Amino acid sequence: MQLVIGNKNYSSWSMRPWVLMRAAGIAFDERKLRFGNGFETDGEFKRQVATLSPAGRVPVLVTDTGLAIWDTLAIAETLAEMHPQLALWPVDAAARARARSICAEMHSGFTTLRNHCPMNIEAALPEVGARLLATEPGVVADLQRIGSMWEQQLEQHGGPWLFGARFCIADAMYAPVCSRLKTYALPLPPAAAAYAGRVLAHPAVAEWIAGALAEHDFVAVDEPYRSAPLPA
Amino acid sequence: MQLVIGNKNYSSWSMRPWVLMRAAGIAFDERKLRFGNGFETDGEFKRQVATLSPAGRVPVLVTDTGLAIWDTLAIAETLAEMHPQLALWPVDAAARARARSICAEMHSGFTTLRNHCPMNIEAALPEVGARLLATEPGVVADLQRIGSMWEQQLEQHGGPWLFGARFCIADAMYAPVCSRLKTYALPLPPAAAAYAGRVLAHPAVAEWIAGALAEHDFVAVDEPYRSAPLPA
Ligand SMILES: N[C@@H](CCC(=O)N[C@@H](CS)C(=O)NCC(=O)O)C(=O)O
Ligand SMILES: N[C@@H](CCC(=O)N[C@@H](CS)C(=O)NCC(=O)O)C(=O)O
Repeated sequence: MQLVIGNKNYSSWSMRPWVLMRAAGIAFDERKLRFGNGFETDGEFKRQVATLSPAGRVPVLVTDTGLAIWDTLAIAETLAEMHPQLALWPVDAAARARARSICAEMHSGFTTLRNHCPMNIEAALPEVGARLLATEPGVVADLQRIGSMWEQQLEQHGGPWLFGARFCIADAMYAPVCSRLKTYALPLPPAAAAYAGRVLAHPAVAEWIAGALAEHDFVAVDEPYRSAPLPA
Repeated sequence: MQLVIGNKNYSSWSMRPWVLMRAAGIAFDERKLRFGNGFETDGEFKRQVATLSPAGRVPVLVTDTGLAIWDTLAIAETLAEMHPQLALWPVDAAARARARSICAEMHSGFTTLRNHCPMNIEAALPEVGARLLATEPGVVADLQRIGSMWEQQLEQHGGPWLFGARFCIADAMYAPVCSRLKTYALPLPPAAAAYAGRVLAHPAVAEWIAGALAEHDFVAVDEPYRSAPLPA
């Protein structure tokens, strides 16, 4: 199987299935399509991804039979179905329904946080975070919802992950949020902040982060706040 | 089971699981939360929905054991799991992966079309559609993608539905798009346009539409283009 991804520093959607598969021990080849100068319709990224998926976005999972599955949620559901023994979704039916609810909420929601705080693993932008907290009530509301969701999950299932002892699809779906919290120094209640720290320290997440830090590939269109990359 | 929905005239997300369950013959009680004056944080809609779902949106499916499942995709996956004999997803694994891909694409995408052409079943706004086609390349691009997706599905599976003989989750996910095509008189290639016509004529969809037309509940915040409802 091949997982087609974008830049590790920026591509929050690519990060999710990559981390999920790595954490679960599902073997795959990685193929990276550099965002390059951005997403202009005639760019190299767009040309390449169009040969793989009619939706024109990463991630795309290409199975050994050549089937292209696009979109994180479809990839996650398909992997869960292919590998029932890995329990990528919680085994309990009620917990599974809850996990699907919060994953779908992430998939279509938190747009204010996502727009104002794009993932940028190598960057440190605490002053941007402080300004947003003061000026953007939508960012504050998104953070509040995430904090209370995580706290409730950790309390109900006892941690360390959102649904208990096993790192599951829901943890992978929220992993890029943990990175944003760090980049923009956004505050959460203690239990939720501790969970974010655990996610960033998870071996699969740490491996993705190390890959991102090694890229040194400044993509202007993904950089609303910086004008130059970190020195290499 | 209870399905909590918003106004039938406007709530495209509510329409999806309602049509899916009706089409599949899954019994449910309907509970409608009127959008009223809109989505102001202290409004009656927000108060009511907050008692049901921490995400604060409709649809919400409340199971007989009191479990709340929010978000269309989580509801659809859970229903598919509860009723395997109904084949809410295509039975063939590759077709199912494709169905999940295009449903997830709808769930997080087509934002230009969705923003410019909000669902409004009772309205007829062909002049708005004509203007958007001339001025909004993003609307044109979304329509092109939908048209080619539908054509490809119909060709591959032979119709009448996106995955062949059975109306499935994917058809329900795109049903509100069919209503928008009509309201805004947006053109699609012949096979795709004929599919949209079949969807609107499907008994479950027709029943939803009849309910919408009976509402006469003008919600200003959902009306970027009209200043008054149709005469009752
Ligand atoms: N809903 C999609 C979102 C995918 C997405 O937006 N990917 C971005 C990179 S993180 C992309 O490919 N952008 C390129 C473009 O929009 O042209 C998913 O969950 O996979
Ligand atoms: N991703 C959600 C979207 C739900 C959604 O946006 N619902 C709208 C009505 S169609 C809503 O409840 N809006 C109220 C609000 O945002 O306050 C789903 O698929 O169920």
